[in-house]
Amino acid sequence: MKILDSVNSPQDLKRLNKEVLIGLAKEIREEIISTISRNGGHLASSLGVVDLTISIHYVFDSPHDKIIWDVGHQSYAHKIITGRKSKFSTIRMHGGLSGFPNILESEYDAFGVGHSSTSVSAALGFAAARDLKNENYKIVAVIGDGSMTGGLAFEGLQNAGHLKKNMLVILNDNEMFISQKVGAIAGYFAKLLTAGMARKFERKVMETVSRFHSLGSTFGKFIKRVKVMLFPGMLFEEMGFTYIGPVQGHNINNLTTILENLKDMNGPVLLHVITKKGKGYLPAEEDPIKFHSIGKFNIETGKIVENKTVTYTKVFSDTLVDLAQIDSKIVAITAAMPEGTGLDRFAKKFPNRYFDVGIAEGHAVTFAAAMAVAGTHPVCAIYSTFMQRAIDSIIHDVALQNLPVVFALDRAGLVGEDGGTHHGSFDLSYLNYIPNIVIMAPSDENELQHMLKTALDSSSPCIIRYPKGYGTGVRLDKVPSTLQIGKSRILRYGTDICFLAIGNHVGTCLKAADLLMKIDINVSVVDMRFLKPLDTDTISDKLLIRTKKFITIEENTLIGGFGESIKAFLCNEGAVVKCIGLPDKFIEHGDLRILREKYGLTTENLIKEALGAL
Amino acid sequence: MKILDSVNSPQDLKRLNKEVLIGLAKEIREEIISTISRNGGHLASSLGVVDLTISIHYVFDSPHDKIIWDVGHQSYAHKIITGRKSKFSTIRMHGGLSGFPNILESEYDAFGVGHSSTSVSAALGFAAARDLKNENYKIVAVIGDGSMTGGLAFEGLQNAGHLKKNMLVILNDNEMFISQKVGAIAGYFAKLLTAGMARKFERKVMETVSRFHSLGSTFGKFIKRVKVMLFPGMLFEEMGFTYIGPVQGHNINNLTTILENLKDMNGPVLLHVITKKGKGYLPAEEDPIKFHSIGKFNIETGKIVENKTVTYTKVFSDTLVDLAQIDSKIVAITAAMPEGTGLDRFAKKFPNRYFDVGIAEGHAVTFAAAMAVAGTHPVCAIYSTFMQRAIDSIIHDVALQNLPVVFALDRAGLVGEDGGTHHGSFDLSYLNYIPNIVIMAPSDENELQHMLKTALDSSSPCIIRYPKGYGTGVRLDKVPSTLQIGKSRILRYGTDICFLAIGNHVGTCLKAADLLMKIDINVSVVDMRFLKPLDTDTISDKLLIRTKKFITIEENTLIGGFGESIKAFLCNEGAVVKCIGLPDKFIEHGDLRILREKYGLTTENLIKEALGAL
Repeated sequence: MKILDSVNSPQDLKRLNKEVLIGLAKEIREEIISTISRNGGHLASSLGVVDLTISIHYVFDSPHDKIIWDVGHQSYAHKIITGRKSKFSTIRMHGGLSGFPNILESEYDAFGVGHSSTSVSAALGFAAARDLKNENYKIVAVIGDGSMTGGLAFEGLQNAGHLKKNMLVILNDNEMFISQKVGAIAGYFAKLLTAGMARKFERKVMETVSRFHSLGSTFGKFIKRVKVMLFPGMLFEEMGFTYIGPVQGHNINNLTTILENLKDMNGPVLLHVITKKGKGYLPAEEDPIKFHSIGKFNIETGKIVENKTVTYTKVFSDTLVDLAQIDSKIVAITAAMPEGTGLDRFAKKFPNRYFDVGIAEGHAVTFAAAMAVAGTHPVCAIYSTFMQRAIDSIIHDVALQNLPVVFALDRAGLVGEDGGTHHGSFDLSYLNYIPNIVIMAPSDENELQHMLKTALDSSSPCIIRYPKGYGTGVRLDKVPSTLQIGKSRILRYGTDICFLAIGNHVGTCLKAADLLMKIDINVSVVDMRFLKPLDTDTISDKLLIRTKKFITIEENTLIGGFGESIKAFLCNEGAVVKCIGLPDKFIEHGDLRILREKYGLTTENLIKEALGAL
Repeated sequence: MKILDSVNSPQDLKRLNKEVLIGLAKEIREEIISTISRNGGHLASSLGVVDLTISIHYVFDSPHDKIIWDVGHQSYAHKIITGRKSKFSTIRMHGGLSGFPNILESEYDAFGVGHSSTSVSAALGFAAARDLKNENYKIVAVIGDGSMTGGLAFEGLQNAGHLKKNMLVILNDNEMFISQKVGAIAGYFAKLLTAGMARKFERKVMETVSRFHSLGSTFGKFIKRVKVMLFPGMLFEEMGFTYIGPVQGHNINNLTTILENLKDMNGPVLLHVITKKGKGYLPAEEDPIKFHSIGKFNIETGKIVENKTVTYTKVFSDTLVDLAQIDSKIVAITAAMPEGTGLDRFAKKFPNRYFDVGIAEGHAVTFAAAMAVAGTHPVCAIYSTFMQRAIDSIIHDVALQNLPVVFALDRAGLVGEDGGTHHGSFDLSYLNYIPNIVIMAPSDENELQHMLKTALDSSSPCIIRYPKGYGTGVRLDKVPSTLQIGKSRILRYGTDICFLAIGNHVGTCLKAADLLMKIDINVSVVDMRFLKPLDTDTISDKLLIRTKKFITIEENTLIGGFGESIKAFLCNEGAVVKCIGLPDKFIEHGDLRILREKYGLTTENLIKEALGAL
């Protein structure tokens, strides 16, 4: 019998002897590895915190105590321990467990999450409410070193340091950012590690310093290093936290003892824990980036089941490198997503022109704005859902100054298994009202390369939004060409009804039109290409004279999106417009095919709607 | 002859002897005080940096060198020195100088600004582009201590510390945040000040420390204080900056010498300068908050010309205090705007339930979300334009979890003299597509109190957006009542045409309807009250049966706003809808009356459009 069989809640866990916890960790890792090899998911980060998760639940008393996971993709062990073991095989599947903490899923999930750097603010919110209500519970936030680069985490830390509430922030330092050398914080953490090891020499060094401090500049660099050794965690201490660490994050025996000691400390405490991404699964330890967010894989070999079709990301990546070869003004900016956005190739090719700013979307955009003023042409590649963090920077720094910055919004539309926090369901709506900008969405990966070229030829702020995953498999033109901005293209010209599409559902329209043709229904199909400027001329001059019946389709929420723009334009024209798109709700997680079917983003539904309209 | 008469550019300034600069500063202050007493503006912060501005322009070579002002409301002396002296009397007037740096206004304005905390990111963008292009210029960012609380500033600092570009960040510490005790950073700056003064004891203290350091915990607190004295600016040093300071910010002779020395330093340097808000004008020195952003005032007395009508802010402020008296769950959160949002009264009344988180809008919202999960009812009061910073927090932390947080968006719609960076032109559009939320806008200040009560009675995330400035003067009901969510009210019931309005232009509609009545045109006037949920039932059941002609009016950009929602709903109903609202551009600064006239938000234009439609 497995130890895990007896653990159905944190209360069960507490009943175990400390000695068996190592065995439990091993079993939980096996469970995670085997499930994620089938379902895909965030493997490396979840494996990294198994020991820490067990230790936290062993010492703290969830759900009375509040455990808040930053980003939340590392919460698999937490889910297994907190009564969701039997459902764990359904993780990230439609109708199954979410891949992230979710307050609607379990009372053990104190705060829902998906985006980075929210945990300190959330922990402080709990602490403030607890103290107001004279309640009595502990609060633990677990945040990765990467998430610490986000401005929101800093805002949370500095407010927490000010309010001096009792709360524990565990910095889960998996050296991700140190290895990638992103941001000053990475360097700072690296120094802390050295400091931790060198602490025993503290007093000796102290004497040295006092002897040489007055000797001035030649000792400057030495002194700086020494400062960190003397006073590790000063950055956090200055923010008002008590800093403790660094401590090894895989020794459950030590971790539980340390957490016991910290449990009743007053004021905000930061515990710096060192963990290894992918811990316990060699392929993931050796390539934590590949195993950060992974699809199905073979457990023995660690190999992923490959698909031969090219992804939108790959086409973006290759086209950008090609164009940058010719135009030295092009620079590329990512917010800690070089692989996900495909900028890793650019980074290798043009290291001086590549900027990974860390998880700091707002800064990425404002930085890009200034680079544009200063005469370069920045391409800022950020996922649609994460760009929500930088909307004010787009408005206030880029659009208001009408600067040539290109925004590549990968993962626009539905993303599937990552669910509600990660769908790119809103970008057409959160961008359309911003003056001066151009918004385009390619119907296939070949159009994507043309659009990137078009954006780089433009002197306006340009946004290209494109979906996650594989393209249509269309043949790629050898050389990308420049499209006319704001001009749609009519792909079929029929008189019974007109399909207007933007982005990846142009193909859906073509298929539906072909099928309808067989029953003698003649459909116009228009690839609008641009949401902004919207090609109202073509609608007025070429389409309205044929039919007044329209169906729009987009993979974005309907409110404020493409379909409503068409409706607003056609309102006074006596046209009848039906819009297909995402409803006004947060879309759940699940296989993309299932979700598109459920929300009517299919050929079948288009045909049904067309028949209904006729 | 005045010294200022000979200064028409920074080049002229450089020709002056250092000795006359003090006199010049005095003249510039006089110019600023007299102009702002007539035009209104950001007086206190601009007076505080006159000496610093002169020193920067004396040492650096703008526009070749780039000077970047954070927020930019302190740039008046900069404008006067850089060739805009003769136009300075037009500042903040329609067609006149902007109250903020603007790249379209002058080549001396390196980067446009208005919102806080962008300057470090912008400076780094310039630095990165400069080095790539092998150009050779200096970059100076001037940022206040308040702006340092913003996460964007932290993101910029930590990326700058990593990239190690040559750039100078001047921390203009006017002790604003120290006096208000906002955030850990404020406490940190306060300690730095002490440190600066205590530096001369440095060596002595050093010996003390080395003697007692090993004695352990009883000396803990002492050691912590000493650390800052020994190593001031460690926070910045840890981020990769060389920290210098604090230095006095009103001694031009010293400042120019220090800047000369720093000019050619390598890597990112932070110079900590202490200034006094309002310096040189006693009423502003004594009450810098009142003189932060001020209307016309009497120079002799410092008194503002008062208006007897109550502001929306005041009604919000009073209603909240009344409701909080009854409901102890209500807590209030502001991002460094206690006076501007009217939460200062709440703060005095309920200090434990009031949270000023600093200029940190994202944190304010995420913090509010957690407070709601933990059983309080947070009211988060932030200006419409600044809420753009927190859109992802609204989506990801509040709306997705469907939490009862009330957002009070003051300064929604046009704000007048502060212009393009400050108009609340977008909130209806940037909020409408977010699932689960309720969006309301009061037609007058009496409605505002009912809406606040309605929002606090609701268990959904609720947004109330209301305009800057004075209400209509309507009589206030003694007790606020709860409105039916999503229900409009029909104020006039006519058959010729229907006016649909939301927010402050309901009154405009009523006036127009009354005038049209005189020429026998019968108008329906509907106060929609809610953008979301939109009261489509009333439109279908009660309005469409009378007329198919509609005019909508809103003080928001038309794209994705109220009018387009109406159009989208009415598109298939054979109705004809004309929308009045802000066009798809950034609106310039100027008197509210002029702007509303220019953009058709007037009774006259409504009448004109109604006649055109009939």
